[in-house]
Amino acid sequence: MSEENRPGAGIVDLALVHYPVVNRRGEEIGSAVTNLDIHDIARAARTFGVRRFYIITPYDSQLELVREIVAHWVTGVGGDHNPDRREALSLVRPVRSLDDAVVAGDECLLVGTSAVATEDGLSWSGAGQLLEDIRRILLVFGTASGLAPEVMARMDHFLPPIAGRGDYNHLPVRSAVAIILDRLLGSREYPVSGRKKIPV
Amino acid sequence: MSEENRPGAGIVDLALVHYPVVNRRGEEIGSAVTNLDIHDIARAARTFGVRRFYIITPYDSQLELVREIVAHWVTGVGGDHNPDRREALSLVRPVRSLDDAVVAGDECLLVGTSAVATEDGLSWSGAGQLLEDIRRILLVFGTASGLAPEVMARMDHFLPPIAGRGDYNHLPVRSAVAIILDRLLGSREYPVSGRKKIPV
Repeated sequence: MSEENRPGAGIVDLALVHYPVVNRRGEEIGSAVTNLDIHDIARAARTFGVRRFYIITPYDSQLELVREIVAHWVTGVGGDHNPDRREALSLVRPVRSLDDAVVAGDECLLVGTSAVATEDGLSWSGAGQLLEDIRRILLVFGTASGLAPEVMARMDHFLPPIAGRGDYNHLPVRSAVAIILDRLLGSREYPVSGRKKIPV
Repeated sequence: MSEENRPGAGIVDLALVHYPVVNRRGEEIGSAVTNLDIHDIARAARTFGVRRFYIITPYDSQLELVREIVAHWVTGVGGDHNPDRREALSLVRPVRSLDDAVVAGDECLLVGTSAVATEDGLSWSGAGQLLEDIRRILLVFGTASGLAPEVMARMDHFLPPIAGRGDYNHLPVRSAVAIILDRLLGSREYPVSGRKKIPV
């Protein structure tokens, strides 16, 4: 889908890491999968032409939970009732590790995200250029308080943190994904045809 | 807070309407307040320097629910445990109607949002200019399938819909709020000082 929607540009995939991530004290943990992250991030991914949304957790019960949720919406009654949700959830791929997300396709560039600025971070325009030049990019997001050091060390590049107004730096990962996909893939143009008259 | 953070520009407030909105068939309904919308939208609002986040519902039980959630995080134990959440939730103001959000401050310009393009919608650059020129703007978002016609008819302006790649147009309101605040108020610059070295 992303290929049709993005002529001349590469494939963008997205990964949400539940292990290894860190808690507020910087300790390595595994976080729980949440139904909400799956839905919200899948809908944003579908909106912006992302090809696949990998949910990374090594825990069997969590992988099974993701599969059940996805099945309900993609092949089950959820999708009959709400085809838009089927379309979004069909992007979801539960996998055990980052390696499984990487080898699931061609070679790809790993682009990490962090709420903390990194020394060799990309600029937003540099990131936009990468999207033009590279065949496949995997955008990697962490849950909890972010990606563990061993995952960060594997990234080829990092996006800059999202700067708002002031120093409050506590966006939900769902919101960060939406904003980052919009910054990288969104359009500020909107077709004038089919505009609706405001009711008076 | 927004005034300190946005020198030379006006105040931006945000309203999330639960009644009157429409369902998928275009029928007027009242939707239920969700804990998640309160948290995610308050965190995005705080990130981007929004002054107040009005939650609009005419139902007593729903107003009481919002007050209880906010109290838990602002004056209760939730905020002791998580001061970042206190800071975000302290922007929330549960009110009965759009009128209550409007008269709660100075005169203000009502700027509506919709997933459907409107005939006299602003451009994104036009919206940015409004933020420079106008003393107070209230950004109005609808839950369910969007604002009811009677609310739309009261808006002074409309923002364009968020265009992704292709025609999928089903973002959660939480994600739409995050993207719109970023488009209007976000910065693509990020201070180089304090950058963290990636662990190797």
